Amino acid sequence: MPKLLMVEIVLACLVAPAVGADAPREKRPPNVVIIFADDLGYGDLGCYGHPTIRTPNLDRMAAEGLRLTQFYVAECVCTPSRAALLTGRLPIRNGMCSDTKRVLFTDSLGGLPHEEVTIAEALKDRGYATGCVGKWHLGHLPKFLPLRQGFDSYFGIPYSNDMQPTYLVRGEEMVEEPVEQTTITARYTDEAVKFIRENRERPFFLYLPHNFPHTPLFASEKFAGTSRRGLYGDVVEELDWSVGQVLGTLREEKLAEHTLVIFTSDNGPWLIRNQNGGSAGLLRAGKGSTWEGGMREPMIAWWPGTIPAGRVSAELGCTTDILATICTLTGVQLPKDRTLDSLDLSPLLLGTGDSPRESVLYYRGRQLMAARLGPWKAHFKTQDGYGQPKYEEHDPPLLYNLEHDPSEKYDVAKAHPEAISDIRRLVAEHEAGLEEPPSQLEIR
Amino acid sequence: MPKLLMVEIVLACLVAPAVGADAPREKRPPNVVIIFADDLGYGDLGCYGHPTIRTPNLDRMAAEGLRLTQFYVAECVCTPSRAALLTGRLPIRNGMCSDTKRVLFTDSLGGLPHEEVTIAEALKDRGYATGCVGKWHLGHLPKFLPLRQGFDSYFGIPYSNDMQPTYLVRGEEMVEEPVEQTTITARYTDEAVKFIRENRERPFFLYLPHNFPHTPLFASEKFAGTSRRGLYGDVVEELDWSVGQVLGTLREEKLAEHTLVIFTSDNGPWLIRNQNGGSAGLLRAGKGSTWEGGMREPMIAWWPGTIPAGRVSAELGCTTDILATICTLTGVQLPKDRTLDSLDLSPLLLGTGDSPRESVLYYRGRQLMAARLGPWKAHFKTQDGYGQPKYEEHDPPLLYNLEHDPSEKYDVAKAHPEAISDIRRLVAEHEAGLEEPPSQLEIR
Repeated sequence: MPKLLMVEIVLACLVAPAVGADAPREKRPPNVVIIFADDLGYGDLGCYGHPTIRTPNLDRMAAEGLRLTQFYVAECVCTPSRAALLTGRLPIRNGMCSDTKRVLFTDSLGGLPHEEVTIAEALKDRGYATGCVGKWHLGHLPKFLPLRQGFDSYFGIPYSNDMQPTYLVRGEEMVEEPVEQTTITARYTDEAVKFIRENRERPFFLYLPHNFPHTPLFASEKFAGTSRRGLYGDVVEELDWSVGQVLGTLREEKLAEHTLVIFTSDNGPWLIRNQNGGSAGLLRAGKGSTWEGGMREPMIAWWPGTIPAGRVSAELGCTTDILATICTLTGVQLPKDRTLDSLDLSPLLLGTGDSPRESVLYYRGRQLMAARLGPWKAHFKTQDGYGQPKYEEHDPPLLYNLEHDPSEKYDVAKAHPEAISDIRRLVAEHEAGLEEPPSQLEIR
Repeated sequence: MPKLLMVEIVLACLVAPAVGADAPREKRPPNVVIIFADDLGYGDLGCYGHPTIRTPNLDRMAAEGLRLTQFYVAECVCTPSRAALLTGRLPIRNGMCSDTKRVLFTDSLGGLPHEEVTIAEALKDRGYATGCVGKWHLGHLPKFLPLRQGFDSYFGIPYSNDMQPTYLVRGEEMVEEPVEQTTITARYTDEAVKFIRENRERPFFLYLPHNFPHTPLFASEKFAGTSRRGLYGDVVEELDWSVGQVLGTLREEKLAEHTLVIFTSDNGPWLIRNQNGGSAGLLRAGKGSTWEGGMREPMIAWWPGTIPAGRVSAELGCTTDILATICTLTGVQLPKDRTLDSLDLSPLLLGTGDSPRESVLYYRGRQLMAARLGPWKAHFKTQDGYGQPKYEEHDPPLLYNLEHDPSEKYDVAKAHPEAISDIRRLVAEHEAGLEEPPSQLEIR
């Protein structure tokens, strides 16, 4: 069968007349699970080359699914990256970035604007049960918590685990303070498993953003001291165990073939934490910077029987694409009244075509620091993730061929002015249509 | 069955009375194939995390076998590394190192001493057919070529592909000069496949040391321009294809379950070649240096039905261990009249136990630069791979915990004096018994 036709048939099935929550499993749109790590580096998993962190569950997930090697987040720190994932829009469009603050803090009064359409809201309209378990960081006042953003339920720490006070919320109620962090990954896992079991008879969306391996690091008794990589390894291996519990539950409930699971992380490793931070592998720099190590992440997509097993792809993708991809696969309409930065990766996932994404924009707050087009990346500005007070400007920009030179070591600007011109055109087109709302991160 | 007992039974079968070359396949000792790349970096394969080099055959070999993440070569450049692999002895013991020359050059008159026992010689005594196809670099005068070191046949370039004149040898006869390098990987592959088919009815040992991805790089017409990683990627992907041809031939000939195949490389990536050199992934530095990037290599062991599939292990190993491991698995006696640096990794390969190796010695010529014991590595001296005229001494040594800090970023010497003491003891014991023969590399 021609590939294109096959996609059309698959999609036709998926966008068939809306099905009730109690339709038989085969006729329901697929379940969706997004597992999101915090500060996990590109090089921190076994299947991405780490020598001493063992991640058998994620390695198996990759072997049974699709592993991407050039997948990006939309910002190199927490809050804006999460806002982009859930809305399919760059932080510069949804108000979740600023020139002065990089993330929401405990004295912040802002949050993800209600006019944004989250993946949860899009799927809820199609009859999905929607649950959020874990770190939110898109506004901790009740009016910004997950229940006001399309989720039926929430259990988690509403921001980073190094922000004081640490407290745990169920729904919109504080249930623990300070948080006993050694058991938090296990408790998130229990909640996730319970959510899956409770919703086994209807389509569901589970968003599971873990608090780890963001520092300070805590592992449960079962994992503490067990990894060759020290505490950081213990923590990542516990997350790997958690992934195994989620996938195992889907198998047990006979839901594996009806569930798309995506695993990725919010930004690169927090290198200033030294041995308590992760590794970007061969990529340059880490969290907070727009070098590759800050913004390229592990990404594994799993849906047995639908996503062909055992593929590794260097096609481009971005967390903002997850919205459009899910909408296609679940037969949900994308919001039409706004600019999205979301491209449909379903052909790449299904193995029927390439990624439509050809470019990546690297923002740091409101600053567009760099842009990628095809294999070429131009850095107009660079700044360390932490410690360098102001960016350095480059004219001509630094230029790297990321596919030949993934570690960004060899500036080839002089040899490829045409690549720079093409990237300048891309940036001009992007900036021409840009409307920037007020920053939510500056509201105190 | 207890693991230990199982090993004993396996070994008892293997060391059973010598079997004739024409014994039925099941009763013959296993075939052995060693595929050796040249200057391939730790990070250059898909299964070791490279984002844009595709190595589906090596990835499959790893998935069907054992992939090691802390496997070392015995020296960080070509000649001594190869001498160590074939003899199970450090170059400091077998004369293949020097204070002034790092490898053999085209005006060298020396070579691997004949009193050394190569893997080929050990196996030939047990009735193996022995073939060498590829780069030799252990002496290019006829008296040092493979036919004088235990091999029945030889086809290849006798040294590095950047040394002039390039010429190709069959047996001890020059058959081509200069060498058409674009087809050399394909021609080596054809020879290897032919050797396997011709020897299908008797036990055989094939040593297949490729000339690539050492520079200058050449890919065949079929591979040139096809990889996302540029010419370097084309060349590595052609090597991966070659591995697929070898394993495919073993399957076709129904020899897969009777053949141990090992894939590794002689030293880390040649970083001064810039984009024509490879990547050590998250490891520090490359070829020529005793940082991890110079000496830690990909290592995949494959023997369907005997080496359990799908394992990744961080247990230690070294190319010098291959001799003892093969001798155990083939029932051959190790040379008893000399000091070996060869430990039997067969329990690790068979999945019945851990590696017996607890330490690694990092030589650069005659200088012991660093030593590893357990997770701790002490650098007594450091020197760039190229360009730094003299080593820098460190007292106390630099100390890294390689399992927590594989990139050697955080010196922890002050916090762990006991680890330094243990390593000093290891080095003293090693040096106490050391007898250094004259250097073969200085003979002109």
